[in-house]
Amino acid sequence: MNYPNGKKNNKITSISKRKKDPDFSNRGMTLEEDINDTNKYYLSRDIAVVHKKPTPVQIVKVDYPKRSAAVIKEGYFKQASTTDYNGLYRGKYIDFEAKETKNKTSFPLSNFHEHQVEHMKSIVAHSGIAFILIRFHCYDQTFFFPATKLFPYWESQSNGGRKSIPYQVIQEQGLEIPIQYPVKIDYLSIIDQLYF
Amino acid sequence: MNYPNGKKNNKITSISKRKKDPDFSNRGMTLEEDINDTNKYYLSRDIAVVHKKPTPVQIVKVDYPKRSAAVIKEGYFKQASTTDYNGLYRGKYIDFEAKETKNKTSFPLSNFHEHQVEHMKSIVAHSGIAFILIRFHCYDQTFFFPATKLFPYWESQSNGGRKSIPYQVIQEQGLEIPIQYPVKIDYLSIIDQLYF
Repeated sequence: MNYPNGKKNNKITSISKRKKDPDFSNRGMTLEEDINDTNKYYLSRDIAVVHKKPTPVQIVKVDYPKRSAAVIKEGYFKQASTTDYNGLYRGKYIDFEAKETKNKTSFPLSNFHEHQVEHMKSIVAHSGIAFILIRFHCYDQTFFFPATKLFPYWESQSNGGRKSIPYQVIQEQGLEIPIQYPVKIDYLSIIDQLYF
Repeated sequence: MNYPNGKKNNKITSISKRKKDPDFSNRGMTLEEDINDTNKYYLSRDIAVVHKKPTPVQIVKVDYPKRSAAVIKEGYFKQASTTDYNGLYRGKYIDFEAKETKNKTSFPLSNFHEHQVEHMKSIVAHSGIAFILIRFHCYDQTFFFPATKLFPYWESQSNGGRKSIPYQVIQEQGLEIPIQYPVKIDYLSIIDQLYF
């Protein structure tokens, strides 16, 4: 398939590796890829500076071959002590975690570690903006859910309460982010509404 | 050696692995270790939330042995596109890079990549606080140097100017951070002075 500019549509090729998606919708991309694209867009337009943190790795053994790059020969994945994304928008510190679920009726709290929730509490306490982005695959919906709405569910779980947040609560207390182009997951538009 | 609480002084043992330092001063610790200790202190006292970003690694090959953790068998170090540290203090986004030098007369600009300087410029443009911490080993001095003072030297270098910042300029335009206990590199005290 050729586009008017004469270039092949490489995008679809790369999406189709993951999932055939003939209707050009977003469903083949992971949430992480969508957020990375969004953050690149924000950065390129000088709208915000938000980056994903690298995956934490415990490096155990490194080889230094002559005349080529150092090679990590043994390493292990470490549990993250913070969220995956943070950055700066309109002078405010923002911090978030992104999660996808295939569940239909609720979002499992097992998606988070204690450390991450503690981290988000600290961010809120120090006047930062903390939130989660939740994608429900079956509905192709992505929600902005403020961390402050997550905390009561987290506490309740520790006290023997339910281990998930109902989909209906996320619909009511979160804000759905429309999937669009060029900014795929325009979470800053929600921050504009809620915090400014 | 035993301390009044009866515990062995493990700290000195671990320092001495790096450098014999009988006078209990700080000189055996790397700047990174000092900053990590400082950030832990800030976090434990609920003063600020600042973390070092993990080292970016391109993971190529992972083994998944039965009944044990995944092992990274091949990986490569990637160049960081941002600075190493960022976080939140008194509602402000802060962002910095820490570097040590053995030079006596100047700090080489080769310590930075173009990406990192561009990143710090964006932070300043979006009302964040960006700075560098520079340690001169031979003088056992650590300076807070605002990123805005770095930019002119960076530009000048691109235009054929000098490739380093003179020690004297860092003394005059930066602020020396006293090494103390328990907060080793109290850079937030400088931020209090300069930005609030």
